[in-house]
Amino acid sequence: MNQKSAPQIARELFDEIRQWPIYDPHSHIDPHRPAARHFDEVLGYHYFTELAHSAGMPAQLVSPELDPSTRCRNLAGWLDRIDNTVQYAWLLEIAREFHGFEGEAVGPETIETLIKSGDKESVGPAWDTTVWQKSNLEAVFLTNDFDDPLIGWDTSKYIPCLRTDDLVLKLHEPRTRQRLNAFTGMEVVDLESLRAAIGKLFDHFVKHGARACAISLPPDFAPHKPPLITASTPLRRALTGLDVRPDEIDLIRRTVFWVLAEFCNDYKLPFDLMIGPIRNIYPAGVSGGRDLFDRRVSLADYKDLFNAFPDVTFPISTLSPDAGAELVAYSWIFPNVVPNGHWWYSNVPTFIAADLKARVEAVPKTKIIGYYSDAYKLEFVLPKFNTFRRLLSQTLAESCVIERGWKMDQCLSLAQAILRENPRKIFARPRE
Amino acid sequence: MNQKSAPQIARELFDEIRQWPIYDPHSHIDPHRPAARHFDEVLGYHYFTELAHSAGMPAQLVSPELDPSTRCRNLAGWLDRIDNTVQYAWLLEIAREFHGFEGEAVGPETIETLIKSGDKESVGPAWDTTVWQKSNLEAVFLTNDFDDPLIGWDTSKYIPCLRTDDLVLKLHEPRTRQRLNAFTGMEVVDLESLRAAIGKLFDHFVKHGARACAISLPPDFAPHKPPLITASTPLRRALTGLDVRPDEIDLIRRTVFWVLAEFCNDYKLPFDLMIGPIRNIYPAGVSGGRDLFDRRVSLADYKDLFNAFPDVTFPISTLSPDAGAELVAYSWIFPNVVPNGHWWYSNVPTFIAADLKARVEAVPKTKIIGYYSDAYKLEFVLPKFNTFRRLLSQTLAESCVIERGWKMDQCLSLAQAILRENPRKIFARPRE
Amino acid sequence: MNQKSAPQIARELFDEIRQWPIYDPHSHIDPHRPAARHFDEVLGYHYFTELAHSAGMPAQLVSPELDPSTRCRNLAGWLDRIDNTVQYAWLLEIAREFHGFEGEAVGPETIETLIKSGDKESVGPAWDTTVWQKSNLEAVFLTNDFDDPLIGWDTSKYIPCLRTDDLVLKLHEPRTRQRLNAFTGMEVVDLESLRAAIGKLFDHFVKHGARACAISLPPDFAPHKPPLITASTPLRRALTGLDVRPDEIDLIRRTVFWVLAEFCNDYKLPFDLMIGPIRNIYPAGVSGGRDLFDRRVSLADYKDLFNAFPDVTFPISTLSPDAGAELVAYSWIFPNVVPNGHWWYSNVPTFIAADLKARVEAVPKTKIIGYYSDAYKLEFVLPKFNTFRRLLSQTLAESCVIERGWKMDQCLSLAQAILRENPRKIFARPRE
Repeated sequence: MNQKSAPQIARELFDEIRQWPIYDPHSHIDPHRPAARHFDEVLGYHYFTELAHSAGMPAQLVSPELDPSTRCRNLAGWLDRIDNTVQYAWLLEIAREFHGFEGEAVGPETIETLIKSGDKESVGPAWDTTVWQKSNLEAVFLTNDFDDPLIGWDTSKYIPCLRTDDLVLKLHEPRTRQRLNAFTGMEVVDLESLRAAIGKLFDHFVKHGARACAISLPPDFAPHKPPLITASTPLRRALTGLDVRPDEIDLIRRTVFWVLAEFCNDYKLPFDLMIGPIRNIYPAGVSGGRDLFDRRVSLADYKDLFNAFPDVTFPISTLSPDAGAELVAYSWIFPNVVPNGHWWYSNVPTFIAADLKARVEAVPKTKIIGYYSDAYKLEFVLPKFNTFRRLLSQTLAESCVIERGWKMDQCLSLAQAILRENPRKIFARPRE
Repeated sequence: MNQKSAPQIARELFDEIRQWPIYDPHSHIDPHRPAARHFDEVLGYHYFTELAHSAGMPAQLVSPELDPSTRCRNLAGWLDRIDNTVQYAWLLEIAREFHGFEGEAVGPETIETLIKSGDKESVGPAWDTTVWQKSNLEAVFLTNDFDDPLIGWDTSKYIPCLRTDDLVLKLHEPRTRQRLNAFTGMEVVDLESLRAAIGKLFDHFVKHGARACAISLPPDFAPHKPPLITASTPLRRALTGLDVRPDEIDLIRRTVFWVLAEFCNDYKLPFDLMIGPIRNIYPAGVSGGRDLFDRRVSLADYKDLFNAFPDVTFPISTLSPDAGAELVAYSWIFPNVVPNGHWWYSNVPTFIAADLKARVEAVPKTKIIGYYSDAYKLEFVLPKFNTFRRLLSQTLAESCVIERGWKMDQCLSLAQAILRENPRKIFARPRE
Repeated sequence: MNQKSAPQIARELFDEIRQWPIYDPHSHIDPHRPAARHFDEVLGYHYFTELAHSAGMPAQLVSPELDPSTRCRNLAGWLDRIDNTVQYAWLLEIAREFHGFEGEAVGPETIETLIKSGDKESVGPAWDTTVWQKSNLEAVFLTNDFDDPLIGWDTSKYIPCLRTDDLVLKLHEPRTRQRLNAFTGMEVVDLESLRAAIGKLFDHFVKHGARACAISLPPDFAPHKPPLITASTPLRRALTGLDVRPDEIDLIRRTVFWVLAEFCNDYKLPFDLMIGPIRNIYPAGVSGGRDLFDRRVSLADYKDLFNAFPDVTFPISTLSPDAGAELVAYSWIFPNVVPNGHWWYSNVPTFIAADLKARVEAVPKTKIIGYYSDAYKLEFVLPKFNTFRRLLSQTLAESCVIERGWKMDQCLSLAQAILRENPRKIFARPRE
């Protein structure tokens, strides 16, 4: 029986774990400009603008038309209203870790200093390297549009990932078809040519080192196996610009999604499912802060998919915090379902702690993908991972050491699996 | 890094917080007779009767036809079956705090003493003052019927609130229309005259210091924007006593609800939404103990409302404990959605602690309305608030001090916001 | 105020509670062969095979066609992938407690030793007694098919329970009707003869000491009161082997279920409802590991039933962990609804702890049925109950001692009620 208290054990574990390199299997980093060159690129993160807006800040104060320093000054005036949040704690950690900030708060009194120390325009790409090294990063996954040329960066560090929301959810919109035709140089007019075009995308992505296909799906999307023959007519209509009914749009979405799953199978790519968002539910919100969810979702809607593609791994993120327990059960039964990090509205310490403890107690340890940053700028990877690593240390201390008598070594080995080995293995280079 | 343990820090915080005046933004107190003048008015609280009934006590043992002392004696015989509950802990705290009780348990051996010490009939209104002062109350909100004359008490202490359940859910019943006509002196026969009458109610309530409009809504109520032209005919039929179909009743409800939201907008009154109860699901229950809920609810059903009325603040309580996480997300995005206390079946320490930690971590601190008592008698305000203040102290100790390194001052300032500043500001006098 | 810390108090409570006899009100033990005579009967528990399969083990490695020792060796190679789970902790506890195991892990290096020490074929029934005594068992409930002769064991130790899934969910299948006709010696052709046959089953079970009727119900089953006259025709068709439509099958199920509830009422048997499983959602899974659930369930669907049978006690288990809070509320209001243990996917320490704390805080103490093992072999009763007893000790330490100032005696008395008195009383012999 360990004689130390849970908080002591957690601290010791964290002191070790925080030193490990970070493997980040999902982000929105721009590989051409990964770190923030103006403090506005930190403060502009939708978490800060949407929380400040929620607390009363008019949306126009952070309008894209304003100049960056003005946006920073405007937002700074509202930060005291959200300084209780975990998101604000990340901001403070960024300021301290990367900008030598010694103040107590980011606000009107300190914003000028931060704008100054946050100005890395002249440092340029060297600043990316500084942040990468200070954060001790090993790899960061990207989210790439299907027509991204994927050139101009080191894809062993910034790993491509094929994002397919547009293909599935917006194929009936002219803009998507134009992009698809333009990029593949093909005329996509029916299921057959669509398959050919998607094949070309997969070739392109895998050739450039992509390690996953990803999509975010609305709560009312239920990927039942589509009747391909029935689907072919509306699909052809949509692809040739004719009108389609709402139920036909639903059928087209299911069909494209199913085809993508087939390609994931063929190309041995994991298919990240990010389940839940209702887009633009609050149109008057700030950019990036207009989406929410309907909590009435169930993975039971995905049973056809999980059964039909036993060789495709589905790393799953659920948006509604109360859906986390169900994901534990599905990961415990389906070999191809793995719980993936803690996403967006579920990425709050209380929810992470509850989900994580259940996963550590009931999901095979080789299947748990601990965390991803979902970051838009490199500076966020470290503080977000630190929040998770602190919670993981706490979970290990309580659930493993205190409740089950584990030794420290066992805890650290489980932490290694969750944080590094599993994502590396699950998102291994395909066809190797 | 604070060297104290979380429980020590929590205790220190509680010792401070418990001394603050209580601002209670929702109750069912009768301002003409706020404190209990017989111990039966304490024991008659539906929590005790329904829990005892659930544990086997026949409903007739607490029938309203019995004399109060008999009801007390009857109920006392069953209290040992529920002495594990937090509700029973409130009872014990009331007995000790207000009636000098020194026993171990409220039960058959001690009930006579408590009936005696609880008899405040001769003390009269002075007892109200005693309880008010001992509890260190600052303000207590009421729940007033729309036809309440609102006279005969100090409305700066007992603050009126317009309860609108009857108007929305029972307008098609003759009794409601009669009351509305009688109180406004108007003949309400169609949408236009209904608006005029509701306008009169708002005038009356605001003139008498009302600070909120409130309603409790069943789980299947989805306040989509009503088509007013379509609604006008069934509304007229209902208002003139003709039959209406179930789908028309739904339309009428949505219409009246929407009109109320318009008035809240015009009068700058917050609109308290209490979402979830199914009334009378257990008709054989004791009075006040017949309602439950269907947990399959989502705030996504309220998106039309939140978007249509950006200037109306909606303090929201959800009845199903597992709906709390969704409320955190909606409060984080919508400026006009604020989480309001911990209601009824969610007012249990485990559920409060989980919801509160998430709110403290992810909702702007200016938007969190900590707690309300929902009490029927003044004596309950203190023990219920103490339960919350203890849990708040614990949350601050764990989430803020231990996990995020806050100082005690920061914690106390957040507690002030949550417990006092926010409700005072959110429920400020309109038109000021 | 207790000066000890919560973990210290919890340890003291557990040291006491672990010594009590175990009363286990639900299991799948075979009374003719209760303990495992080969280590494969331990390792063959679906938790291990399904978790290993979920972690990558091919299902055929544990095929029933293999010989038991081979299955053990095969599975042993995959156990390191699930050694983080609470289920694996039970395995280790069984090995240590019953087989003198002193190794660190059950795996390829140690499996031969365990196969050897687990071989109890020659010991025979004496091994059942050894496990019974070492585990300090008082009574274990069985799950008996409706046509079980119920003879050949001591029914005061292994208590019969009438499992009715087949009757309700599969009555329209010929196999069920044949079994029913064969066992009752009756020709079941309509509602009347069905009632007579079911009456015969109840007679048989109660005569042999049955203490409960039980059923597991899918998430889409809503037991509204069936219209018996409308139901009689499709029921007759089904019973005479004619085709019935899906909606008629639903009606037949509701009808048979309702009839069973009527018999529970007449025979004073509690009716265990185990709500949630979708059977065979993952057909390629290992035996026993193919079922999951849809989390969108609500006890509101059961209101007709709870109201119609006030004298039938319904011990309820819910499969979806997030449904636990709703069960607390329904148990708090309906006298005939009692929360029953922590079932299957909800039987994970995090979920148990959350549910248990809420029950201890808000459900009358006389109604909480703490735990059941759901075990297939006797060896599992002890480690599973120990997990629960540890969590109960922790809950009592935190919720009762630290938060509410209880004495140790009060905690132990509550633990006695939850673990022993309540199941003994709720599952008392009927007609006594």
